[in-house]
Amino acid sequence: MNILKQYKLNDGFLLRYQNLVCNEVIPYQKKILDDKVEGVEKSHAMENYRQAAQLLEKGKCDGEFYGMVFQDSDVAKWLEAASYSLSIKYDPELKKEIDSVIELVGRAQMSDGYLNTYFTVKEPGRQWTDLQEAHELYCAGHMIEAGVAYYESCGKDSLLKIVMKLADCIYNHFITEKAPGYPGHPEIEEALMRLYGATGEKRYMELALHFINVRGEDSDFFMKESQSRGWSVWGSWNGDKEYTLCHKPVREQMDAVGHAVRAVYLYTGMADAAYASKDKSLEEACLNLWKSIVNKRMYITGSIGSAYEGEAFTKDYHLPNDSTYGETCASVGLIFFANQMLRLQKKSEFGDVMERVLYNGLLSGMELDGKKFYYTNPLECIPGITGKAVNLRHVLEQRPAWFPCACCPPNVARLLTSIGKYIYSVEDENGCGKVWVNLFADGELNLSQYKRKIICKTKYPYGGSVNFTVTSEEGEKYLSDKFTLAVRIPSWSKKTRIYRNGKILSDHYLNIKDGYAYFTDFFLAKENIRLEFDMSIKKIYANPKVYSDNGKVAFTRGPLVYCAEGFDNDGDLLSVRIRKNPHAKVLGYNPDELSGVQKISVWAKRIKSDDNNECLYSDKKAAYEKINLILIPYYAWNNRGVNQMRVWLPQE
Amino acid sequence: MNILKQYKLNDGFLLRYQNLVCNEVIPYQKKILDDKVEGVEKSHAMENYRQAAQLLEKGKCDGEFYGMVFQDSDVAKWLEAASYSLSIKYDPELKKEIDSVIELVGRAQMSDGYLNTYFTVKEPGRQWTDLQEAHELYCAGHMIEAGVAYYESCGKDSLLKIVMKLADCIYNHFITEKAPGYPGHPEIEEALMRLYGATGEKRYMELALHFINVRGEDSDFFMKESQSRGWSVWGSWNGDKEYTLCHKPVREQMDAVGHAVRAVYLYTGMADAAYASKDKSLEEACLNLWKSIVNKRMYITGSIGSAYEGEAFTKDYHLPNDSTYGETCASVGLIFFANQMLRLQKKSEFGDVMERVLYNGLLSGMELDGKKFYYTNPLECIPGITGKAVNLRHVLEQRPAWFPCACCPPNVARLLTSIGKYIYSVEDENGCGKVWVNLFADGELNLSQYKRKIICKTKYPYGGSVNFTVTSEEGEKYLSDKFTLAVRIPSWSKKTRIYRNGKILSDHYLNIKDGYAYFTDFFLAKENIRLEFDMSIKKIYANPKVYSDNGKVAFTRGPLVYCAEGFDNDGDLLSVRIRKNPHAKVLGYNPDELSGVQKISVWAKRIKSDDNNECLYSDKKAAYEKINLILIPYYAWNNRGVNQMRVWLPQE
Repeated sequence: MNILKQYKLNDGFLLRYQNLVCNEVIPYQKKILDDKVEGVEKSHAMENYRQAAQLLEKGKCDGEFYGMVFQDSDVAKWLEAASYSLSIKYDPELKKEIDSVIELVGRAQMSDGYLNTYFTVKEPGRQWTDLQEAHELYCAGHMIEAGVAYYESCGKDSLLKIVMKLADCIYNHFITEKAPGYPGHPEIEEALMRLYGATGEKRYMELALHFINVRGEDSDFFMKESQSRGWSVWGSWNGDKEYTLCHKPVREQMDAVGHAVRAVYLYTGMADAAYASKDKSLEEACLNLWKSIVNKRMYITGSIGSAYEGEAFTKDYHLPNDSTYGETCASVGLIFFANQMLRLQKKSEFGDVMERVLYNGLLSGMELDGKKFYYTNPLECIPGITGKAVNLRHVLEQRPAWFPCACCPPNVARLLTSIGKYIYSVEDENGCGKVWVNLFADGELNLSQYKRKIICKTKYPYGGSVNFTVTSEEGEKYLSDKFTLAVRIPSWSKKTRIYRNGKILSDHYLNIKDGYAYFTDFFLAKENIRLEFDMSIKKIYANPKVYSDNGKVAFTRGPLVYCAEGFDNDGDLLSVRIRKNPHAKVLGYNPDELSGVQKISVWAKRIKSDDNNECLYSDKKAAYEKINLILIPYYAWNNRGVNQMRVWLPQE
Repeated sequence: MNILKQYKLNDGFLLRYQNLVCNEVIPYQKKILDDKVEGVEKSHAMENYRQAAQLLEKGKCDGEFYGMVFQDSDVAKWLEAASYSLSIKYDPELKKEIDSVIELVGRAQMSDGYLNTYFTVKEPGRQWTDLQEAHELYCAGHMIEAGVAYYESCGKDSLLKIVMKLADCIYNHFITEKAPGYPGHPEIEEALMRLYGATGEKRYMELALHFINVRGEDSDFFMKESQSRGWSVWGSWNGDKEYTLCHKPVREQMDAVGHAVRAVYLYTGMADAAYASKDKSLEEACLNLWKSIVNKRMYITGSIGSAYEGEAFTKDYHLPNDSTYGETCASVGLIFFANQMLRLQKKSEFGDVMERVLYNGLLSGMELDGKKFYYTNPLECIPGITGKAVNLRHVLEQRPAWFPCACCPPNVARLLTSIGKYIYSVEDENGCGKVWVNLFADGELNLSQYKRKIICKTKYPYGGSVNFTVTSEEGEKYLSDKFTLAVRIPSWSKKTRIYRNGKILSDHYLNIKDGYAYFTDFFLAKENIRLEFDMSIKKIYANPKVYSDNGKVAFTRGPLVYCAEGFDNDGDLLSVRIRKNPHAKVLGYNPDELSGVQKISVWAKRIKSDDNNECLYSDKKAAYEKINLILIPYYAWNNRGVNQMRVWLPQE
């Protein structure tokens, strides 16, 4: 089924974000790609394609390549997000714009299918000689995803044909001609799996599995390549094999290491390939890497990557709050990975993590107005130090408008415009439908193939009531086919009340398996399932091995992680302690603040201002006065100017 | 007066360290310089001098320069420490060894006085063209200090003559010939001031003041230099002016910034020059920079430098415990700076800091057996993360035996072999002696010029009783000359009892000024002054702006900062919290453990082991059981194998 066309958001929190992406991010991004925005780093990404096309058509070009070696991927990611947005709201002008970009991309493709403007314009003849640095397969992967997206959204195969030719070119090089190597930056694995899914062409899965299987078999491949190729994109390489995830064959990799985005992109492709090829050893590898992330290397916000150096995972339980990398792209990738794991195993923990990332470490990457973006997502911001101290320069006090390396904004865009794929998993069992609800949002899924529609009404993530109505297309009568609806019960909801057609279901009547509540015996043409989650405020403690969080507490409500900002708390959070047994209460929903927010007020205490002294160290224990500390959802931080922010708060 | 010859340690804590330096560090270091130690990085430092001498004598040499651009300074620092050690215990073999090194150094000096083996052997003709990177003036400064040290210790001017000729060569280049520029790594300023002190030659002070005054006047000097010179020691320069402390003229520098060692070396020279030239604006600049360090940028251990990147100061109150740089050399330099500040202003805060650094962040740089050294001195070590996570690789789990960049061990050696200079300040007032006691150690100062001897008996830093006997050389009779003894009262001692000739002095009879107790009316030929410091255990809290220490407490006793090690505490410190009102008691002195130690036992609690779970985040508050946490002095950490360590401990 094509969930892009069958699902739409109707209202609520995620719709606001999706609208922002469609109305702000996608048009803005196109202007950037066209170099029509003043005062930001020049993109030149479209112009690179024009130069490549000119070169191929006329044998020479009048300009040059400009930008990062992976500049092409910005165009691909825009195409992907813009395509999805057409499936949300058809816009003929945008369609025309997309078609003109596709036409240009096609003209920049060589006759053998090769497509990469960096090599065509800047480094002709050096194709495939720098897999470690040059992002050729990465850019190809993104364009393949765009081709599939446009095909799925609009039913047009114009870009699909281009990327099939590109994939065939890659197949020819690495399979037919047996060229050694694998991508320095994984991405193509998942792209090829999607291309296989869209076309049924098994060679694409074969190629994806090839890249997965040869990875790390020769862990010195990149070193040999860098020594023999005689040129380089970025100069010398430090030889860190973990950075490029080639230190071991993937099935032997037990810890999530290296560049976090590369890691989760790779794992996503692995999980997809494990599912499609029924490869149990690959599935087990995915599960090991999953556990490594979520049990030892993930922030409470779902962000991953503890170090700026290498934009990387570091070591178990090393989760510094001030120097967090937590790249927004890595959050997107972790959602991809979780979603693929859900295909392998219908367990709520994958949905739990997907939800944790989405509502916290991912949305924090975007300003509430959709106009500014974070690359890194710290859990602590102390103006004057954050962004200023030499080892914290990567952590910015404020979201900038655009990056020279503009990977994150289009990644958020492509995720939010295809959100239905993450909300629902649909499988067919002998012609009968099985639907898993992984995320909660106000919207509807039209399952015409099963003659049903699922409408979800909810005020999520602020409201804990989720109301599903499953209706028959054929009016008020009994349906005889077997149909399954399974709803994830979030692990944070300690007591969930579940109603069917208005009547509460006791445990006896509930079929809960691996965190999903299953409803399989639908008979009425209109069924109502309502879940009331436990929306009490939770005090969260980190595993004591996370030494950065020792003695600290964080607050969550529903899927939202909260934080304190100076803005609500007299500017200073550092002299504040949470009281020993703090009472915490939810304040009323305010639609006019922070694009609609419910704050939390919690019992705390603050060092009395007349008790402050200028000493760096003192044996005098400070005197405190009681206060109520105001918390806001983490995703909404830093929308009111530079100020202090903390997720983990010291507790007395 | 020549304090090196007039002071000696008699017993106790510091003597053990001084003996280690004389018996272990200095001979070992000489072997390193001679490339006679297997299995460590080759030094080649002596060989560089041999090559330079050969080249000058025969017009060519049979080898090459090897090592860091500042390799010469290792020889200079060894000469300085070895010279001091002769003043402690005369050793004719060592004297011969020193003389032979001096003879070689002399042979490597050019006829115009120029002395630097890197340029003589490796880069002839490029002298003085790379002041930013090449450490020429830094190496010159260290050799000048060695020349003064040998002269002061042994009364021989063989090296003094060499370094005067070198200083004259530098004077000629920068003053007579008006060459622009100033040293990238300050050191020569203080060296020239010492040379001025030893010789009375005013040109050396003039040159020191010149380097101080022109620094930062043209803040682009290094940039212009790097653009025009057409060669480089290390390749490109990032243009960070703060790193080399040339962002502003020194009198306008309000914050301690940049490379911490360069900074405190510069400030030391500035303070010395301010004292000698009675330059009030320079004194004020020193005081501003002092306040910046001790009020906002210094660890509780006295270590400085919060970032590995640039080995640098960062921002006010940014004092991370796990990624601390805290270079041992910077601790040495801060003691130099404090000591020069004491010449300008007789205030106990300078002695307080000197003591804090010495007994904590400095001695932690050396293994208790004197055979291994730390370059960085973290306040928190979590094996598995420390030294392993990519952004903590500079923080080692264990002290290595020697470094390729071997600056720290000889720096510790030269400090400990000349410790008398820091313990006592002596000034002459119209022929009468004034003596300030800044540090406490069991030893004696012979003031023959004032016909007195001061004997200090103490078990410091473990014992808080300090007993001074001031005796006349001329036997039992009254002395008519005015004599002043001023003893620092450490700020950590909240109640100090002071006895004169056995009788306690009430406040009325005490003359305390700026933290020093003054005794000026000596009449007896044998006077006894005894101070009993408050040796109670102190719970120390950091200024709340130091967010790394929020909610945490540290323990001190006397001058010692304590820490917890896993070794004494079941291997795990992360599940431990200090109780709210903790009782802390000192355990008995154990001479057989950690080279003699008194541990502390403090009320704490630990998460019950059966309450541990593998979750990364949980809403379940852990159950605790009461324990006594054992603390050891910070200087002694990591002498029993790799294990956890924490100075700042979370408190409930």
